Amino acid sequence: MPHKGTTVVDAFVDTASEAQSCQLICVQSIQHCLQMGGAHVEPSHMQLMQDCAEICETAATFLLRGSPHHNQVTAACASVCELCAESCDRFKGDAQMKACAEECRRCAAACQHVAQMRPGGAAVAGLGGVR
Amino acid sequence: MPHKGTTVVDAFVDTASEAQSCQLICVQSIQHCLQMGGAHVEPSHMQLMQDCAEICETAATFLLRGSPHHNQVTAACASVCELCAESCDRFKGDAQMKACAEECRRCAAACQHVAQMRPGGAAVAGLGGVR
Amino acid sequence: MPHKGTTVVDAFVDTASEAQSCQLICVQSIQHCLQMGGAHVEPSHMQLMQDCAEICETAATFLLRGSPHHNQVTAACASVCELCAESCDRFKGDAQMKACAEECRRCAAACQHVAQMRPGGAAVAGLGGVR
Amino acid sequence: MPHKGTTVVDAFVDTASEAQSCQLICVQSIQHCLQMGGAHVEPSHMQLMQDCAEICETAATFLLRGSPHHNQVTAACASVCELCAESCDRFKGDAQMKACAEECRRCAAACQHVAQMRPGGAAVAGLGGVR
Repeated sequence: MPHKGTTVVDAFVDTASEAQSCQLICVQSIQHCLQMGGAHVEPSHMQLMQDCAEICETAATFLLRGSPHHNQVTAACASVCELCAESCDRFKGDAQMKACAEECRRCAAACQHVAQMRPGGAAVAGLGGVR
Repeated sequence: MPHKGTTVVDAFVDTASEAQSCQLICVQSIQHCLQMGGAHVEPSHMQLMQDCAEICETAATFLLRGSPHHNQVTAACASVCELCAESCDRFKGDAQMKACAEECRRCAAACQHVAQMRPGGAAVAGLGGVR
Repeated sequence: MPHKGTTVVDAFVDTASEAQSCQLICVQSIQHCLQMGGAHVEPSHMQLMQDCAEICETAATFLLRGSPHHNQVTAACASVCELCAESCDRFKGDAQMKACAEECRRCAAACQHVAQMRPGGAAVAGLGGVR
Repeated sequence: MPHKGTTVVDAFVDTASEAQSCQLICVQSIQHCLQMGGAHVEPSHMQLMQDCAEICETAATFLLRGSPHHNQVTAACASVCELCAESCDRFKGDAQMKACAEECRRCAAACQHVAQMRPGGAAVAGLGGVR
């Protein structure tokens, strides 16, 4: 996702979109790993993809609500996404794991960025409007 | 749903994407309605947008998992989306409500379509792969 | 859970509680199966526990909101819970799978019951109050 | 949290149960506030109850999975619960808001406690078993 938005509202909506994409690929990756079996279903790896899908979903809705209390949630999301990417990195030559790692890193970067922002009043109001 | 796929896998992924978009706009619309107040925060209307956001999220993940048991869930999602669209229709001249109704109807149509499908073995396997 | 409630509100809240318990045990059972490996991580079994955890969560919140549109959702929940119970039944002698199957059947029964109800005005109003 | 466990596993499961209770009362409180109208549907108050319900749900499942990466999530949950309690405190004489504030504070305390823990190997294994 190109981070082309220049306002806080744009950053929130762009990051929410990235988080939804990351949730999506993690849900698919869990099924991929179940079909692969072996090292792919190691508990710590599977757990990270579950953790990642879930915190991404939560971060996305905090941002879509324009919540002023998103900071710890988006920071947590960035951390879990980075750990999930590292776990996926271990499966060399697996295209699904490679795509998952890449999406996790994009989401981590976007979340890290917004985790340091607070929406102002206008920004929050803007989130409720059609863009 | 910009590109209509021709396989079961495409239909599942396209519908999941539609459901994520519908969840997104419902979450934003709830905040919009809270900011508008008045008839916009009537309990039955607010409840429908909450119901819609939630069943869309669930339908999306059932489809992303390629679940053979998605049929009642996607059928329920289609029904709730249609009711939510009708509730949004009542706010003439409100661009957010108009956009929400339109997305709800797109999601209802996509869900109605997949609610009658069952993924075959190949389709399910395909859902775990990078596309 | 004893279904001791005699009103529609009681039935909704009791069933929501059952659905939360069922979500809880399914989330734990997924981790148990990952630790067991082998037949426990067969994709169709793992997928059912994921499906079950998610539709239970959704059914619970529809009921807690007193949604008049819960019927297809609770019916879908009953179906998925029954399928999940059958999948868990196959693991003879596994206490976690036995407990999961039992909870899934309790939740299926409770959901089947409320799936045929519609909350009246008083019932819905009652759901918003402290009990 | 009726019985305080003495092990890490007990603390995780007890806190997950508290978080599910907090999610439950927040979902009900949102409906209560919609029925009350007026100051009860002020956007910042409604948003906090939505934020609280959602982060509680996420914290609960991280804990039920025995996730070693729960710390930032449970810390975020504690913060949001405390803010939600403060927002509910403003409605003097409203029994639902009082009950919601009390549950939010119980959940905040439990989350604060586990946010400083890391599960050991035995603890994680234990979470997958029937208790």
